[in-house]
Amino acid sequence: MTLKLYELVGAGDVRFSPYCWRTRMALAHKRLAADFIPCKFTDKELIAFSGQTKVPVLVDGDDVISDSWAIACHLEDKYPERPSLFGAGCGRGLAKFFNSWVDNEVNAKLIRMVVMDVYDSVHPDDRDYFRSTREARFGSRLERVQAERPVYMERLQQVLDSVRSLLEGQPYLCGESPAYADYVLFGTLQWIRCVSALEVLDAADPLYSWRERLLDAFGAMARQHRRL
Amino acid sequence: MTLKLYELVGAGDVRFSPYCWRTRMALAHKRLAADFIPCKFTDKELIAFSGQTKVPVLVDGDDVISDSWAIACHLEDKYPERPSLFGAGCGRGLAKFFNSWVDNEVNAKLIRMVVMDVYDSVHPDDRDYFRSTREARFGSRLERVQAERPVYMERLQQVLDSVRSLLEGQPYLCGESPAYADYVLFGTLQWIRCVSALEVLDAADPLYSWRERLLDAFGAMARQHRRL
Repeated sequence: MTLKLYELVGAGDVRFSPYCWRTRMALAHKRLAADFIPCKFTDKELIAFSGQTKVPVLVDGDDVISDSWAIACHLEDKYPERPSLFGAGCGRGLAKFFNSWVDNEVNAKLIRMVVMDVYDSVHPDDRDYFRSTREARFGSRLERVQAERPVYMERLQQVLDSVRSLLEGQPYLCGESPAYADYVLFGTLQWIRCVSALEVLDAADPLYSWRERLLDAFGAMARQHRRL
Repeated sequence: MTLKLYELVGAGDVRFSPYCWRTRMALAHKRLAADFIPCKFTDKELIAFSGQTKVPVLVDGDDVISDSWAIACHLEDKYPERPSLFGAGCGRGLAKFFNSWVDNEVNAKLIRMVVMDVYDSVHPDDRDYFRSTREARFGSRLERVQAERPVYMERLQQVLDSVRSLLEGQPYLCGESPAYADYVLFGTLQWIRCVSALEVLDAADPLYSWRERLLDAFGAMARQHRRL
């Protein structure tokens, strides 16, 4: 039975959600096919069956799972014979830590740098919803938030240094081959790539070549998706 | 052949270095006995054979290894049949990330909160060395640095939140049993415990009970060490 993934869709069918990209890469890692069902921010009724209001939502037979971390754990536990997302032992706990770290330290900085780009990328039906919810969150006009980009760029680069030092000795965050922690941060960079002309990495950055490797993974699945 | 660990010693024979505690716990985890050789900050000639100036230094037969992370990797690779410090797969890469994160986000904040306490705990022979090197690093008198403790306490608690959320679902950072990432952060708390009356955790904090479990580990080895 085919799995179903409800994922965010923007203008022109772009799929930019960093959290949905985590799940897309996790499914590919597990060699699991899925139907991808586009869902706008305001399509709350489409995923009401999940008991909450956010994508990604995975439907796997009788199982309905929301939250990208919970989905990763579900895939790992339900399909243990397929390639592991976490490895044995400490992997899952530390991947969870890395997942929270990316959410709080990377994504929370990056959203401020591209929030107008995201606004321009959401489906036209979602613009008012996106602007009002995000302006309430930031306590400021979106235009003003994104204007502070240079300040956040500097902080972002500092934050990414701890990941760069990890890549000095190995091709992927998880070691010789990629796994879930790689997809967590990759989802973030894929998000930026899908919504913005901003390039946060220069070509000499170890993170740049790491991202290239992941853009090529799984038949270059992610590379096909980019800013319109 | 018994291993030798050169480790920092303070006034009254106290062993407070967070990095040496990482190695002590790693040795215990691997069920490896070692002779512990005390080394003051200014005993540079004692470890000159290692080609650098910092403890911990492990001597394991013909192997001489400095830097706590390199020591952990050495122990894992040389004694693979003993309990694993990282687990299989992603564990080592993510533990390295966690190791850097604790160094940069936790220890770098904490040192400012306890730097006078550390000064009071170093061996009397080391006081001038410690004061001059640390005042150069902070660009300020040690007394003034520690006076900002309340500011750093707030930031520290925010930083520790990402570890707390991990402990909500499992007893150790590494899962059902402790491993190297646990010892990394434990080393930090043991350091504070050995030099300061400052308590950074309250009894209801999940990190508090986690620390208690690690103080009890390996025959309560760490619990015996505390502020004079």
